[in-house]
Amino acid sequence: MDRIQLDYTHILADSIGAPHGLDEQSLMALAAPSMAALAAVQARRTTDLRWLDLPHQDEMLDEIVAYAASVRGQFENVVVLGIGGSALGPRALHTALNSPYHDSQPPADLPRLHVLDNVDPDWIGEFLAHVDPHTCLFNVISKSGSTAETMSQFLIFQKVLIEALGQEEHKRHVVVTTDGSHGVLRPIVEEEGYASFVVPEGVGGRFSVLSPVGLLSAALVGIDIRGLAAGAADMDARCKQAPFEENPALVYAAIQWLMQSEGDKNIAVTFAYSQRLRDLADWYAQLLAESIGKRLSRDGQEVFVGPTPVRAVGVTDQHSQVQLYAEGPADKWFTFLSVENSDHTITIPKAYSDRDALAYLGGRTLNDLFEAEREGTRIALTEAGRPSVDVIFPKVNAATVGQYLYMMELAVAVMGEHYGVDAFDQPGVEAGKIAAYALMGRSGFEERRQEIEASSGTTAKRI
Amino acid sequence: MDRIQLDYTHILADSIGAPHGLDEQSLMALAAPSMAALAAVQARRTTDLRWLDLPHQDEMLDEIVAYAASVRGQFENVVVLGIGGSALGPRALHTALNSPYHDSQPPADLPRLHVLDNVDPDWIGEFLAHVDPHTCLFNVISKSGSTAETMSQFLIFQKVLIEALGQEEHKRHVVVTTDGSHGVLRPIVEEEGYASFVVPEGVGGRFSVLSPVGLLSAALVGIDIRGLAAGAADMDARCKQAPFEENPALVYAAIQWLMQSEGDKNIAVTFAYSQRLRDLADWYAQLLAESIGKRLSRDGQEVFVGPTPVRAVGVTDQHSQVQLYAEGPADKWFTFLSVENSDHTITIPKAYSDRDALAYLGGRTLNDLFEAEREGTRIALTEAGRPSVDVIFPKVNAATVGQYLYMMELAVAVMGEHYGVDAFDQPGVEAGKIAAYALMGRSGFEERRQEIEASSGTTAKRI
Repeated sequence: MDRIQLDYTHILADSIGAPHGLDEQSLMALAAPSMAALAAVQARRTTDLRWLDLPHQDEMLDEIVAYAASVRGQFENVVVLGIGGSALGPRALHTALNSPYHDSQPPADLPRLHVLDNVDPDWIGEFLAHVDPHTCLFNVISKSGSTAETMSQFLIFQKVLIEALGQEEHKRHVVVTTDGSHGVLRPIVEEEGYASFVVPEGVGGRFSVLSPVGLLSAALVGIDIRGLAAGAADMDARCKQAPFEENPALVYAAIQWLMQSEGDKNIAVTFAYSQRLRDLADWYAQLLAESIGKRLSRDGQEVFVGPTPVRAVGVTDQHSQVQLYAEGPADKWFTFLSVENSDHTITIPKAYSDRDALAYLGGRTLNDLFEAEREGTRIALTEAGRPSVDVIFPKVNAATVGQYLYMMELAVAVMGEHYGVDAFDQPGVEAGKIAAYALMGRSGFEERRQEIEASSGTTAKRI
Repeated sequence: MDRIQLDYTHILADSIGAPHGLDEQSLMALAAPSMAALAAVQARRTTDLRWLDLPHQDEMLDEIVAYAASVRGQFENVVVLGIGGSALGPRALHTALNSPYHDSQPPADLPRLHVLDNVDPDWIGEFLAHVDPHTCLFNVISKSGSTAETMSQFLIFQKVLIEALGQEEHKRHVVVTTDGSHGVLRPIVEEEGYASFVVPEGVGGRFSVLSPVGLLSAALVGIDIRGLAAGAADMDARCKQAPFEENPALVYAAIQWLMQSEGDKNIAVTFAYSQRLRDLADWYAQLLAESIGKRLSRDGQEVFVGPTPVRAVGVTDQHSQVQLYAEGPADKWFTFLSVENSDHTITIPKAYSDRDALAYLGGRTLNDLFEAEREGTRIALTEAGRPSVDVIFPKVNAATVGQYLYMMELAVAVMGEHYGVDAFDQPGVEAGKIAAYALMGRSGFEERRQEIEASSGTTAKRI
C-alpha cells in the first residue's frame, strides 16, 4: 500500500530560523502529553468515539457495496441532500478519486454526483429546471432528521417524485442515511419503506466520512470504498499506540497546538498542491473549525480559542494569496498537500525557443513545472521564515485518501486535549438555529421572536 | 437600475456593544483622511490607475460584443487559459450570472466555459482526455506573455490544435488577450495571425475584470457585459467624489482599516449568502490579499501588514464554520453578501405535520428559510459581539455585480492609503517564481539553483 508521510523539516528553527521556527525540544516536550491525550482518546473508542473504529466495519462495507451493486445502471444522477459533514465528505471523496469530467461525461453505468448542500432558491430552482427527477436517486442524509435545510429539500423532492412517478414507484428513488432508532427520519423510513443506512452511534457529523454518510454516495459513483477503509485502517495501525516521534497524527496535532500557543499563529492554511485534493482541505476546514473553535470559562473569565482554517490550491493561489503569505503578517502556518506521482504525464512542446520566457519550458513536463512551482513556493516561504509541513501523497488513490482522512480525524481529537476543549460538540451553532426557528415561526420559539422584533428597532445605517 | 447597498449597522457599538463595536465617531473621524485618499486615487485615473475608467470604454465593449457575435454558434467550449486575475474574474462572472447548469446543459448556441487555472497534470490530462479540441475556442490571457502556467498550457494546446486541425485552421480556435505592444505574446499574435484583445495600460491583473480579461469570456457565454459596465459606471458615479458618509467604497475601506488597526481583527470573512456570489468572494480574496498584504520598512524595522481574506458560503458554512465564528477568537469581521430577491420561489410542501421538527417548514418557501437562516446567523453573531456589515443585492444581475466589482476595487485602492502600502504591486511573489525558474533550469538562474541545492542538505524530518 502507498503510504502518506508527514514531513515537518520546515517547521523547525534549523530550517526557517528564529523567531517562527520551533526548536525540536519544544516539539519533543509534547511527547508525554501527546501520548496521554492519545490514550484518553483511544479509551473512548468503544464508547462515544466509535468513529475511531469505522475502518474495521466489514459488514457495513458489504451492505453498502451490495446496495450500490443492486442499483447500478438504474440512475443517471445521485443527489446528496445533506449539509455540513453530510456533504463535505461525499464531495471530497468524489473530487479526489473521480475525474473532474466524471459529471460531464460519466463513465459507463455510473451516475453523476450532485451534492446539494445549500437551500439557496437560485440553486435548487435551477436544479429542478434542469435535472429530471426520473433519473435521480436521492440520498437524504441527516442523523437527527431535524436539519432544516435537508428536510426542506426532502419535502420538496419527495413531492416532485410522487407527482412524477406515483407513491409506490417514488420509493425506489430515495435512500436515507439516518440514526438507527432515534430522530425524525427513521420512522419516516419505516412508514414509507425507503431503503436506508445507519449513522452509527458515536459518529458525529464531521467524523462521519468513513461511515455510510460518506461511503454510500462514494460507492454509487464507483469509488473503491474498501480501499478507503483499508487506508484508514492502515493509518489507525500506524497511530493507535505508536510513540510520539513515529506518530504522524500526534506530531501534526502537537505542531498545530504549538503554532498557536507559542507562535501566536491563529490561521492554519491547507495549501493543496493538487486540484483533486482541494475539497479534502474544505472537509478539514469543518473538522478543525467546529472541533477546536470554542468558548471556554477559565478562572471565571471567558476565553475564545481555535485556529481559523484557510484553504488554498497550488499553483493557482500563488497568483492570489502567496503575496500575503510571504509578506503579510506572520499569523499563519502552512500544510502543503503534495502528490509525488500524477496519473498523467504531459510534455510541454518546444516552440518559440528564441524567447527566454518560453525556452526553458519546452521539452519539460507539466509535472516538472508543477513540482518546481510547489518547491519554489515552499522555499520562498521557508526563506521568509514562514513555517510549513508537508503531507506527501505518493499517489492519490483510495488508500492514501483514507489514510489522510483518518490521520486528520485522530489529530483533531488529540488537538482537543491540547487546547482543553470538547472537540465533539458545537454549542455555538445553537443560537443561530434558534433565531432562525423564531423567524420561521416554529412553535415554542414565540418568545425569542418577540425579543428579536423588539431589538430590531435600531435605526439601520445604510448607504 | 437595481442598486446595491452597504449596511453597517452591526459594526457599531450601538448594536454589538463593546469591546468589538466601533463607535460612530471613530468611523467618522476617518472622513477627512478617506476623502484625501479618494482624491489621491482619483488623481491617478488617467495615468497609472486606468482601471478606474474601464466602465466608460464603449469602444472596447463594442469590439468584444462584435467578436462574440462573430463566433456565436461555432464552438461548444470556451477555454480560458489564465491564472490569478485572468481566471478569477471570468469564473466569478460566469457563476454569478449564468445557471449552475449552464455547463452541463448549455443554452442554445452558447458554449460551456472552462477556466483552467492550474497546471496540475491530473486536471490538464483529464481535460485532454475528455474535451475535443475541435470544439474549443481557447482564450489565452496573460498581459506579459511570460506567465509560466498560461504559456505552458498555450504551448500544449497549440500543438494539439495544429495536429488536429492543421496550421491554418488552428488559428480560428485561439484568441489572445495580452498587452497592446509589449511582452512575449503580442509578437506571437502577429506572427500567427490570432484574433486578439488588449489588456489596457494601467490595468493590473487583479483590477482587470472589467477589461477584456474578464469581459471577453463573459460575452462569449452570453453575459450582458454592457450591463456590467453600466453597473460599474453607476458605482463610479456614486463614489467618485461623494462625501464619506454617502460613499460605500470609502466607508467599507475605513471599516476594514479600523477592524484591523483598532479591533486587531486580522481575518476578513466574506460570507456570501448566495451560491451564485461565492466566486465573487474568491475574486475579492485575491484583490484584498495581493493589494494589502505587504512588507514595509518603518523606522528601520520590518513590518508585515494585511488582513487575511476568508470565503464562506451561507447557509452551507453555518454547518462548518459558524461554531468558530461565534465562539472562537474575536479575530474576524464579516461581510455578508445578501440577496433580497431570488430568481426562483420554491414552496416547501406540507407533510408529516405532526412532527414538530417539520411542521414549521411546510407551506413556507425555501426563500423564507434562506433569509431566516441568514438573519438568524447575523443575529447570533451580533449578540456574540461579532461585527458584520451587509452588502445587499436587490437582485443578482449584471448591473448589481458590476457595482460590487467596482465598489470593492475602489475600496481596496483606498485601503492601500489607510494601510500605507502600494496596493498595486506584488513583490512577494517574485522569490517563489525565481526559485521555480531555478529548479526548472531557466537560463540566468544557475546561481540560484546552486544555492538551493547547497541549502537542501538539511536532514528531512519525515514520518
